[in-house]
Amino acid sequence: MPEPLNDAALDQLFRTARTYNGYLDKPVTTEQIRAIYELMKMGPTSANQSPARMVWCVSDEAKQKLAACTMPTNAAKIVKAPVTVIIAYDVNFHEHLPWLFPHDQTAPNWWPDAAAREPHAFRNSTLQGAYFIMAARALGLDTGPMSGFSHEAVDAAFFADTPNIKSNFLSTLGYGDPATIFARSPRPDFETFNTIA
Amino acid sequence: MPEPLNDAALDQLFRTARTYNGYLDKPVTTEQIRAIYELMKMGPTSANQSPARMVWCVSDEAKQKLAACTMPTNAAKIVKAPVTVIIAYDVNFHEHLPWLFPHDQTAPNWWPDAAAREPHAFRNSTLQGAYFIMAARALGLDTGPMSGFSHEAVDAAFFADTPNIKSNFLSTLGYGDPATIFARSPRPDFETFNTIA
Repeated sequence: MPEPLNDAALDQLFRTARTYNGYLDKPVTTEQIRAIYELMKMGPTSANQSPARMVWCVSDEAKQKLAACTMPTNAAKIVKAPVTVIIAYDVNFHEHLPWLFPHDQTAPNWWPDAAAREPHAFRNSTLQGAYFIMAARALGLDTGPMSGFSHEAVDAAFFADTPNIKSNFLSTLGYGDPATIFARSPRPDFETFNTIA
Repeated sequence: MPEPLNDAALDQLFRTARTYNGYLDKPVTTEQIRAIYELMKMGPTSANQSPARMVWCVSDEAKQKLAACTMPTNAAKIVKAPVTVIIAYDVNFHEHLPWLFPHDQTAPNWWPDAAAREPHAFRNSTLQGAYFIMAARALGLDTGPMSGFSHEAVDAAFFADTPNIKSNFLSTLGYGDPATIFARSPRPDFETFNTIA
């Protein structure tokens, strides 16, 4: 029977973890990027759809291309961060289900068309985006998720040849610089948004 | 500088954690439910929107009402689980931003209407649903997220008086029974769905 993680781990994952606007001058290695993915891919998605498609922008060229698609405040964060990730999703995730969900070979036929698959791709890639955030934190890194950008522009810049792939959200990644964060926004009491029925 | 969590913690959160179909006969307390929320609420959402609205079904009556809205295989899991949670979202999350996002009092006006707020509520409540899964695991509990249900039926049964609140997905919660899980579905190699740019 698993026990709760210790307080230091809960702090690192949830309580003292923050969304960073800027990062220390310390690189993120390809090995770390792969290690994040090896954890995040284990998180659950519906019928193991795994619809997230990740573009890890590490070059100045890729970061500049991405920054051109975002709000100015986000553009500045993107070009300065060690890595900025595009979390996208594949509306045609069903084509991979024969090997991703071997239990039931009828799974690819569960949705009549792309419109029916869309909310599943969006929901499950978002879950994977959250697993990305938690995996990065679990490995001692920090993130800066953001949605202030033009989906159309990002899709045109990065997914023009694969119209089945659409941007969901972005996140910077690195070792957070404490000087770049503000006071934490308040969080609701349990009673505010929860009901026990 | 945070270090990576130890292997036991990474296993508990990602590698050996599983989605459970059934649970041990061991109760989940209200204190545990509150502790999960106290962690999950710290996870980041865009402009601290915190759009998730959670209904924790612990009574037989609530579980039966929910089970009536789902696929038969899911109904059986719901009525037997110690707790089943409805992760829903509030399309009118903007009404709370004056206190949730005190940094910028113009935030409630960033979206022209409910249609513009909908994808943000959906995305950010889904992130919170993933934080719920990770928080439960961090506290030694297990989950069984599921999307095989009628959104219309759940919304009519639980949110008839608050049409701004819509169901996103469901999850059972408890101490997972290892006898109820099957072989884990395969996960993709890094190269399959990732690009380093």
